Amino acid sequence: MLSVEEASTAILQHAEIRAATRRGIVEACGRVLAEDITSDVDSPPHDKAMVDGYALIAADLGGEGTQLRVLEEVTAGNVPTQTVFPGTAVRIMTGAPIPRGANAVVMVEQTRSTTASGQETVTVDATSLAVGANILPRATSLQKDDTVLTSGHLLRPMEIGLLAEVGRAEVEVVPAPRVAVLATGDELVPASKSPDNGQIRNSNGPLLQALVTRAGGIPRDLGIARDQPDALRDKISLGLSDDILLLSGGVSAGVLDLVPAALAAAGVEQVFHKVQLKPGKPLWFGCLFEKHQPRLVFGLPGNPVSSLVCFELFVRPAIARMSGHPANQPHHRSGVLTRGHRQTGNRPTYFPSILSEEDSRLTVSPIDWRGSADQRSLVTANGLALFPAGDQDYRVGDSVLTIPL
Amino acid sequence: MLSVEEASTAILQHAEIRAATRRGIVEACGRVLAEDITSDVDSPPHDKAMVDGYALIAADLGGEGTQLRVLEEVTAGNVPTQTVFPGTAVRIMTGAPIPRGANAVVMVEQTRSTTASGQETVTVDATSLAVGANILPRATSLQKDDTVLTSGHLLRPMEIGLLAEVGRAEVEVVPAPRVAVLATGDELVPASKSPDNGQIRNSNGPLLQALVTRAGGIPRDLGIARDQPDALRDKISLGLSDDILLLSGGVSAGVLDLVPAALAAAGVEQVFHKVQLKPGKPLWFGCLFEKHQPRLVFGLPGNPVSSLVCFELFVRPAIARMSGHPANQPHHRSGVLTRGHRQTGNRPTYFPSILSEEDSRLTVSPIDWRGSADQRSLVTANGLALFPAGDQDYRVGDSVLTIPL
Repeated sequence: MLSVEEASTAILQHAEIRAATRRGIVEACGRVLAEDITSDVDSPPHDKAMVDGYALIAADLGGEGTQLRVLEEVTAGNVPTQTVFPGTAVRIMTGAPIPRGANAVVMVEQTRSTTASGQETVTVDATSLAVGANILPRATSLQKDDTVLTSGHLLRPMEIGLLAEVGRAEVEVVPAPRVAVLATGDELVPASKSPDNGQIRNSNGPLLQALVTRAGGIPRDLGIARDQPDALRDKISLGLSDDILLLSGGVSAGVLDLVPAALAAAGVEQVFHKVQLKPGKPLWFGCLFEKHQPRLVFGLPGNPVSSLVCFELFVRPAIARMSGHPANQPHHRSGVLTRGHRQTGNRPTYFPSILSEEDSRLTVSPIDWRGSADQRSLVTANGLALFPAGDQDYRVGDSVLTIPL
Repeated sequence: MLSVEEASTAILQHAEIRAATRRGIVEACGRVLAEDITSDVDSPPHDKAMVDGYALIAADLGGEGTQLRVLEEVTAGNVPTQTVFPGTAVRIMTGAPIPRGANAVVMVEQTRSTTASGQETVTVDATSLAVGANILPRATSLQKDDTVLTSGHLLRPMEIGLLAEVGRAEVEVVPAPRVAVLATGDELVPASKSPDNGQIRNSNGPLLQALVTRAGGIPRDLGIARDQPDALRDKISLGLSDDILLLSGGVSAGVLDLVPAALAAAGVEQVFHKVQLKPGKPLWFGCLFEKHQPRLVFGLPGNPVSSLVCFELFVRPAIARMSGHPANQPHHRSGVLTRGHRQTGNRPTYFPSILSEEDSRLTVSPIDWRGSADQRSLVTANGLALFPAGDQDYRVGDSVLTIPL
């Protein structure tokens, strides 16, 4: 049986980055860039006023109350028409180009303005000003033809602003993987129906779709397939048009676990079945190699918590890899137990737990939990604690690795 | 001038939780529940097999190789028709109901099966089993009519699974606030155009729309308004049909800063103007009280980094509050400087920085940064470091508060 690490490696080997596509920049946020971006402008495009005030010659300020004749006013979006010479100034707004001749800007708060016979005079209260004061020189933050972002960069809101500044309204990005979700089992009815004797509701379908969305994929609901080869085949064939197909249920050892056979019939080749892991041991993984890029197929265990653990350990990283994200492994963070825990058995166990940030350390409290079908207790958890294989009593204060949920 | 805390309090006072709406549960993920949820089922609905195997009477196992006659097979979704009595067993699949008479299930891996003349016999390798082994009793994880989630609970994927289990395909949630984004300024051209002399591209519009999406709001792009009262009035009136209107630019002291006047003309009442903060001092905030719930209007500074800081400190919490999120204040986390920093002036400063998790502590490295228009350097940052007001040289190893970006 594969270890978690071996299974993860086997999956990521087949998870290829999706072909690039063009998107508007706002929509592109959260996606990974698939081209290098160069600037078509200097930034700022001109020596620029950093405050509202008056552009002047710094050497003109000889003491308190220097008076300067105001030549004109330049607002943002306009250009100066006058050259500043000794004894004069130009009223200027934040962002506007500095007029020729001027070498500093005094803040409006340090001035008083009077107008007589249509001529404005400004009295400067500041007694001195450094050359360059309140001026941002042209091309300070970037020069035309600079490469400002490279392919593989994750686009956050800050990058979206930069893309707009350098003239890109659209960019090439790696699109979100499409993930089909199919629940299997004769015992399942949809959430909207009342279960009869022996039936339960399909909670895995909605759970997995929500997990896909949170992981940055686009879920597609294929509903429920009965435990019949024909029903399975039709739904599976639908799901194989997406990048990833998630099936839940039908992969443990029961006689009606028809999923692996139905997948084989659809041309999906098994890569592995079963992982040394609790919960989640029955995980099945295979690929359809016919298309230009492999379709990934996960047969997830039918229990919601098993499904969740397999999703976080294996499916989320595959979605991240296909999305071009540089970091695509679950981030295990160390924390300190605030509650004892008994670990048994020969499989590493991911146990639902409450993670909490306390005095800059992470505390971990395994929840009261009644096994992998217990969704009710699961909602009290916000993470998984990893207990390695082997019987051991963990005590308060022991260190364990965790994954946030 | 208000402090950051005073400004924050003034804003959140007017940020009312939006009226509830009904959503399908997958779409509801990430939203806050606006009703209490009770279960219409027991879970599990019956005493349930936790493994594939044979349901039997524990006392029947007296030594190695106990042989039992198999009465029938019960798959998930079906119900048992036979009662187990001494010397018999029922083959059973994970999730299926336990037949009457049986009080334990042996895993299929601990058995061998032979069939002669159509009669299956199972040989059990396990020498003993506890009563109740591998059986999950009815209603272990929840009982009919239990309240499983209460109004105000944030819906994550785990909650979506639980909602499906208890029969809810749709639920009442607090919808995402709609946020209109309007950039103002004669100097602005859209990202798709080449700027002429004195012009720059509108990067704040796309930046703010991306920030809104990341904060859980629904952005609406109102484009660019010229510095003319009529143009401003029309766009502002459009934006006031949304829950929040974000304007960028037009709120500092320049003569063309027409935004406050245009807002007043539209019936928006100023709550405050200016905050003791760097960057972001010119922040304007007001409300339109005409509608059944106040429309919030933010006049954000025109510089992208000032806009970003004001968004994270003030707009994101308002979106969170209107969305019903219990936690709606920026999470300030303590970190240790790995680079010195000189802080000057009488305003607390949020400085773009690189935050990094190292040996379970957070390190903070302020970036090389050329002021609030420098978007290019900003993309190297993933957080803001807070330096309190007052001149001070910070040294490597000093502790500072941070906000992740």
